[in-house]
Amino acid sequence: MLKVGVIGCGGMGRSHIDRITNRTQGAKVVAVSDVFEEGAKKAAEIAGGDCKVYTSGKDLINDPEVEAVLIVSPGFAHCDDLLEAIRLGKRVFCEKPLCTTADDCKKVMDAEVASGRHLIQLGFMRRYHKGYIQIKDAIATGEYGEPLMMHCTHRNPTVPTSYDTPMAVTDTVIHEIDLCHWMVNDDYDSVQVIMPKETSLTHDKCKDPQFMIMRTKSGIVIDVECFVNCQFGYDINCEVVTERASLKMGTPMAMSVKKDAKLTTEVTTDCFVLFKDAYDEEIQNWVDCAEKDVIEGPNTWDGYLAAVTADALVKAQQTGQIEKVITVDKPEFYK
Amino acid sequence: MLKVGVIGCGGMGRSHIDRITNRTQGAKVVAVSDVFEEGAKKAAEIAGGDCKVYTSGKDLINDPEVEAVLIVSPGFAHCDDLLEAIRLGKRVFCEKPLCTTADDCKKVMDAEVASGRHLIQLGFMRRYHKGYIQIKDAIATGEYGEPLMMHCTHRNPTVPTSYDTPMAVTDTVIHEIDLCHWMVNDDYDSVQVIMPKETSLTHDKCKDPQFMIMRTKSGIVIDVECFVNCQFGYDINCEVVTERASLKMGTPMAMSVKKDAKLTTEVTTDCFVLFKDAYDEEIQNWVDCAEKDVIEGPNTWDGYLAAVTADALVKAQQTGQIEKVITVDKPEFYK
Amino acid sequence: MLKVGVIGCGGMGRSHIDRITNRTQGAKVVAVSDVFEEGAKKAAEIAGGDCKVYTSGKDLINDPEVEAVLIVSPGFAHCDDLLEAIRLGKRVFCEKPLCTTADDCKKVMDAEVASGRHLIQLGFMRRYHKGYIQIKDAIATGEYGEPLMMHCTHRNPTVPTSYDTPMAVTDTVIHEIDLCHWMVNDDYDSVQVIMPKETSLTHDKCKDPQFMIMRTKSGIVIDVECFVNCQFGYDINCEVVTERASLKMGTPMAMSVKKDAKLTTEVTTDCFVLFKDAYDEEIQNWVDCAEKDVIEGPNTWDGYLAAVTADALVKAQQTGQIEKVITVDKPEFYK
Amino acid sequence: MLKVGVIGCGGMGRSHIDRITNRTQGAKVVAVSDVFEEGAKKAAEIAGGDCKVYTSGKDLINDPEVEAVLIVSPGFAHCDDLLEAIRLGKRVFCEKPLCTTADDCKKVMDAEVASGRHLIQLGFMRRYHKGYIQIKDAIATGEYGEPLMMHCTHRNPTVPTSYDTPMAVTDTVIHEIDLCHWMVNDDYDSVQVIMPKETSLTHDKCKDPQFMIMRTKSGIVIDVECFVNCQFGYDINCEVVTERASLKMGTPMAMSVKKDAKLTTEVTTDCFVLFKDAYDEEIQNWVDCAEKDVIEGPNTWDGYLAAVTADALVKAQQTGQIEKVITVDKPEFYK
Repeated sequence: MLKVGVIGCGGMGRSHIDRITNRTQGAKVVAVSDVFEEGAKKAAEIAGGDCKVYTSGKDLINDPEVEAVLIVSPGFAHCDDLLEAIRLGKRVFCEKPLCTTADDCKKVMDAEVASGRHLIQLGFMRRYHKGYIQIKDAIATGEYGEPLMMHCTHRNPTVPTSYDTPMAVTDTVIHEIDLCHWMVNDDYDSVQVIMPKETSLTHDKCKDPQFMIMRTKSGIVIDVECFVNCQFGYDINCEVVTERASLKMGTPMAMSVKKDAKLTTEVTTDCFVLFKDAYDEEIQNWVDCAEKDVIEGPNTWDGYLAAVTADALVKAQQTGQIEKVITVDKPEFYK
Repeated sequence: MLKVGVIGCGGMGRSHIDRITNRTQGAKVVAVSDVFEEGAKKAAEIAGGDCKVYTSGKDLINDPEVEAVLIVSPGFAHCDDLLEAIRLGKRVFCEKPLCTTADDCKKVMDAEVASGRHLIQLGFMRRYHKGYIQIKDAIATGEYGEPLMMHCTHRNPTVPTSYDTPMAVTDTVIHEIDLCHWMVNDDYDSVQVIMPKETSLTHDKCKDPQFMIMRTKSGIVIDVECFVNCQFGYDINCEVVTERASLKMGTPMAMSVKKDAKLTTEVTTDCFVLFKDAYDEEIQNWVDCAEKDVIEGPNTWDGYLAAVTADALVKAQQTGQIEKVITVDKPEFYK
Repeated sequence: MLKVGVIGCGGMGRSHIDRITNRTQGAKVVAVSDVFEEGAKKAAEIAGGDCKVYTSGKDLINDPEVEAVLIVSPGFAHCDDLLEAIRLGKRVFCEKPLCTTADDCKKVMDAEVASGRHLIQLGFMRRYHKGYIQIKDAIATGEYGEPLMMHCTHRNPTVPTSYDTPMAVTDTVIHEIDLCHWMVNDDYDSVQVIMPKETSLTHDKCKDPQFMIMRTKSGIVIDVECFVNCQFGYDINCEVVTERASLKMGTPMAMSVKKDAKLTTEVTTDCFVLFKDAYDEEIQNWVDCAEKDVIEGPNTWDGYLAAVTADALVKAQQTGQIEKVITVDKPEFYK
Repeated sequence: MLKVGVIGCGGMGRSHIDRITNRTQGAKVVAVSDVFEEGAKKAAEIAGGDCKVYTSGKDLINDPEVEAVLIVSPGFAHCDDLLEAIRLGKRVFCEKPLCTTADDCKKVMDAEVASGRHLIQLGFMRRYHKGYIQIKDAIATGEYGEPLMMHCTHRNPTVPTSYDTPMAVTDTVIHEIDLCHWMVNDDYDSVQVIMPKETSLTHDKCKDPQFMIMRTKSGIVIDVECFVNCQFGYDINCEVVTERASLKMGTPMAMSVKKDAKLTTEVTTDCFVLFKDAYDEEIQNWVDCAEKDVIEGPNTWDGYLAAVTADALVKAQQTGQIEKVITVDKPEFYK
């Protein structure tokens, strides 16, 4: 039974506490922390019984009973807690982003490498979505030839006014940044952002839609339509074009209705519905890997690469030019 | 240029005149007839120029300029005109039914056999629908094994109050009666009609829906859901289950729309839209076959078999029992 | 933590032990039994630690530590264990069938009614399949009008030579028997079995395919194509036709591949893949209901109805006639 | 009966002669020309009877019997014949390209404007494909909001070794160049070509695939995956993303087969199958418009715009930069 401490008791934090408590085998939440003590106390109730409450992540990490840490605090607070956990050799599940700057990501990566153990898994839950796995597995068979292109869409019904143009990268396409390089087993070389005609249904601070292009080191070209006020649904699509085939992600099982001269199926509007199983699987896998002392999910390099690629995309939003993704050499440790 | 006379100038008759005049190669309408002279005159205008007008089918058939006859009059009037055309050795395209009684059908069939020439094509246009042809061709490859079952639906949005229970057989499922035995190259042995719970959206004289079952001589079981007040569309489906496969008819090309959390394509409500090409093809094929002096479409035997099978189904509507389809032996002439 | 005893340690029994041990919240297996002690011992290892081993179901049921019983023994052995569990007021999850005869089912039902508590849930896991739930929920909205017909297929790639004609009812369509009446909230009135042309790919003792028709008391007509040597897949379909709509069950999410001039998606060949989640959900729901002392899944009446309907279908296989489904009046207890 | 002269008797020319002769109402081929007299003679036989044979397009155009001209000669020969036809006020159907240089296109456009009559229709047959028309009509309703993006694929199984990199623009994406601006009723502002990782299944002279991006004057961003050695099919896709919806072109009706654990439909490999009806419709529409003295299909401006846009794309293939599409102002005559 892996004893987990959870740092950050907002909506996502409480969701993870509920997940570990009620839908995960082999783990339980023994401590929670939040700078808002009231929030932490309420979250502790989800875990039940004797769950401890902290107002400092550092204190929670240092609790000897806490064997593994789940970080769901705001991104700016990740770096210190990650370094502390590495120092103590405790395993971490960290919601994206790894850190908010490439430098901090690098610092954490260096510390992990120095520790000699793989300790950190990033919260890119989509890697656990059956739809992506089917495509990755299909590519891996070799039957379809080399992947050459990927076409993706990431569409949300609407976003709040707090969502601004860079968040199209850092909150939205960040998922495709991680997924796409993982699916084709390659890192990024350069990126570009094209701003199409703007929808009248966005707000001032958010250019929408955006059309992003990422090129991998081997030349695979990935385009991502990011349209966060598309109105019609949470509509995630992915097609990989290989030398001999097109592989397209399926859609969730849905009843089809013929009525009023129309054949209709539902399009979900809720990412937590679409990726519910993926969220459960990522945590279960993280827990299962504790015994084996490995990280099978997205690791610190992936978090670093995502951060650097996101920086390049945000720059590309402003310049309109093709921007290079400049990373350190990938440490042997992560190969 | 095949010179065609058209008997019957109602909506369907005028549609055929328009078809031959404007969308058929190698034929033109030289005469029309209708008991209502005004109707005939208006129809003649569609054909244009020097199209003759008759008020008697017999007179039209006997016009020496008329080389071939298209019969679109009410069913009860078919028999005499068919016999007259056979007597004169003129080719006929006859809208369903061949005749209204099995006896009359038999009389026409005997006359045709005696004439020694294949002269009559029935208006079962669906045989020219690409969807059915794809399935028939697939079965014929042998790749899928023997056909064992067929599942069909024949759904209309609504029917007028003049449509009564037997018309579910004689006007609606009559198409499946012809199609299904043709697709599997077999004749009928017995039939059954099951009356499910009735929709509240039908009217007194029309039991709706009806579930019809037809067994062929070799044992293939065909079920047809006939639902003529289904509200939602003109929805025609056909699936053939063979020893190794299920073969399902495709649907017409249709744009798909994602909007308001739904993925939607249109379902047609109009049989003339769905089968527009089939209507054109059947007439073109009939015209093309004139030169070769053959009938490639549904022939007199098919018309006879449809009539006898329809009689059995109408009887089965009343008895609720499995009813035999009793036919004469199929003449060598039609094998 | 519900302490469960499992009777029957064959493949399905071991699968349930694994499920409860590794994928179910709030329950653990504390005892197992099997007439083959070796099998029971091996099964106990799945549960781990201090799981007790019995060679008699009765002994297991009487173990005071056992709070609830999961019966996965052969059908003929169910009746005694069910009665014993009812006598002791212990909750039961019983794999289908409830009992092998209608009389025994009745005996169990009477005992449960007399006990005044709902204790037994039947293993009709498909009720927990999202596909069926979506349709049932849609019907329940009333938006589509009354259900009138259902079209189902139940297709298996192949069956072993031990599978004989009646098993098409008792092992295969038994699922549709339970599902269909549940989806439309109705009981059965009569049934019929039609034997189509036989596939050459079956064996002597198994007529295949079979086309079964069930009529509910309110007149809903349900047809089920049962084709257990269809070769091509484990292909489960369900369409409900209502007064205003057709509701068709979706298919599981699957990647689509365009390659070699074909667009292809996989059809599963494994029922445990298709219904994996449903198996997990049914057990989780049974466990969750223990605290509330209710049965939300298929209950003893459903098991009795399924048995009586299956008997009528087996009779109808032989007679070729429409056979009545004769049940006792539904006890108030189950309404 | 429109009397048509056909210039160019290669495969496409003969196909058009057959079309006019056998599948078009209201037109006939009265003269053909080809520099290879033998080819012209053979083509004349398709038209039948008294079809005249020329070896010079100019002579054919000047034949007083020829009322309208269909130009299917190689692109370099178009300009002179177009100018001659305009001089004589004869209507023209001209296969793409209008001319091979923007200057020549301009010259023809100026001549047509000076003539004061719309005389020339370009052979962009896809405008007559039901799939594109459905989307254009849907956009025109306004119900979906403004179009913002389009995603297209243009995939061929293979191309011969004579097909080089620029032909991806001039022979392949030229169709999307015309279609896309027509569908959204806008002209082009700039273009870009991205060269992804190359397939190992292309040849030296042909970079493949290519990812092309076109921006319209109003900012609509259109991406076209051009992959001419994709192996798997002639796979044409088009999705328009508007402010409130995604509109995706349907695929042709196709039987679906379940066999061997797969659900499969065919993907065509032949553009003449996919666009057969469109080829027929474009010619029929051109003929029908003669009486009304209008051009409803793609006109000279469209031909000019396509040429200039293609030039910019070919340049962009080499520079890797965003290239402007520089046109003269659109003459009032074409608005």
